[in-house]
Amino acid sequence: MITGKTRLIVHLGYPTESFKAPMIYNPWFEMKGIDVVVVPVGVEAPNYPEVLKALFRTTNVHGALVTMPHKVTTTQLVDEMTTTAKIAGACNAILRRPDGSLLGDMFDGAGFVRGVERKGRRLAGARGLVIGCGGVGSAIAASLAAAGLSAIGLFDAATASSEALADRLRLHYPALQVTTGSNDPSGYDIVVNATPLGMKPGDPLPVDISRISSDTFVGEVVMKEEFTPLLRAAMEKGCTVQVGTDMLFEMIPAYLEFFGFGTSTPDELRGVAKLNY
Amino acid sequence: MITGKTRLIVHLGYPTESFKAPMIYNPWFEMKGIDVVVVPVGVEAPNYPEVLKALFRTTNVHGALVTMPHKVTTTQLVDEMTTTAKIAGACNAILRRPDGSLLGDMFDGAGFVRGVERKGRRLAGARGLVIGCGGVGSAIAASLAAAGLSAIGLFDAATASSEALADRLRLHYPALQVTTGSNDPSGYDIVVNATPLGMKPGDPLPVDISRISSDTFVGEVVMKEEFTPLLRAAMEKGCTVQVGTDMLFEMIPAYLEFFGFGTSTPDELRGVAKLNY
Repeated sequence: MITGKTRLIVHLGYPTESFKAPMIYNPWFEMKGIDVVVVPVGVEAPNYPEVLKALFRTTNVHGALVTMPHKVTTTQLVDEMTTTAKIAGACNAILRRPDGSLLGDMFDGAGFVRGVERKGRRLAGARGLVIGCGGVGSAIAASLAAAGLSAIGLFDAATASSEALADRLRLHYPALQVTTGSNDPSGYDIVVNATPLGMKPGDPLPVDISRISSDTFVGEVVMKEEFTPLLRAAMEKGCTVQVGTDMLFEMIPAYLEFFGFGTSTPDELRGVAKLNY
Repeated sequence: MITGKTRLIVHLGYPTESFKAPMIYNPWFEMKGIDVVVVPVGVEAPNYPEVLKALFRTTNVHGALVTMPHKVTTTQLVDEMTTTAKIAGACNAILRRPDGSLLGDMFDGAGFVRGVERKGRRLAGARGLVIGCGGVGSAIAASLAAAGLSAIGLFDAATASSEALADRLRLHYPALQVTTGSNDPSGYDIVVNATPLGMKPGDPLPVDISRISSDTFVGEVVMKEEFTPLLRAAMEKGCTVQVGTDMLFEMIPAYLEFFGFGTSTPDELRGVAKLNY
């Protein structure tokens, strides 16, 4: 129940029609007795800097969830960014701290990492390969580095993207071994597809599946179908896999902790979410 | 249920803690299946122009409810005002029209007028006395004029207030007979107290009750207690009266019509409101 005491998490993006966060967070806040509500606020790109600044001039906007097309712009508008957001080059969450300053963070990769860890894989000291170094790939690479990988391979058909991401990783994680230019999955403990390959029928696989061993963990960001051709091929080889939608529900506890609302689990969140509303 | 398709009515003021509108409007919207939600947005006075402008740069803010301390400032920030808002010198509602322009209106007086009419009193051609020409008194005078009074008396201990209000009424309603300077209720069909007298124990009555006839309708804006000393004295003389809180629930259907959501009745709204939450 919204009252005059309710704090707001503004969900910023455009268009807003497909937003899912209100139907996941709000039932959870209600169940927990937390007097906060996520409200969609549609903002087109040219108006974003002005609207963002003004929203945080109010007295009861606690934070923001940021989505397309504002994730990169947000890096220019917050006062401070976490290392993960700096490496990702994008923010998808903003917290107003008690002193009024804005902290930006990026959780697109946290969902992937939490899902891997929940499936029993240890990331500290492991070797990971990230295929695709756009927005989500950069975020996953940043979160994998934060989780303690010893080595990371980056591949993108646009080599400038993988090189720039490699530079940012080396800057913030000097001990991390960073290599670029190969999508050969052999020798990696974790392989993740962060390209759109798998969205369209007939897409080639993003890696040469014959060179993946059965003890490699294979993850996917594509959510077009639960088990993409890559995941099906990996499962046939006996690999443990993670589907794209796992990232979503794994991400939300990370957001909740960031906003100071305690934590949750993907199962609890799936249980209260009203996504079919 | 808030989704990505939900439109917002922002409830602007500071402080926000005592806001009642979300607990009245939102259950009604839900009952009617209207995908709109009233959310409190706390804004301190210095930030108001910037925040207001930015909120209407978003794609899903449909309108605003405006309260203290922003009602007068709003007159400078909208593109157009109704006659009632012009006379009141204040706005408590803003509608974004399809072309993006902002229309300001003022409903503090509409609640009073609707309550009088619902109690069977005809205002067209009647004579009314408004005691107190501050914000709410000006709004009531404006709405009484819009309802078709033939004559209006205005009284305020600060004579400049009543004179300025008289000038605005004469400008917009040339046929209305406007007098100032007397709080003598004799000869009026409607008398309304729009001063704070009745808030504190021992306050004098705002009018000389001995000069009110039993067929005069006596209204009150003070909500400190349901039946103020003025109303009790008027009832002893046999007058029909209207309590302060009647204005509140009578006002809301006027807002709903302004925002294009159909209409309601005070009884229906009282039935769904969750004010004790």
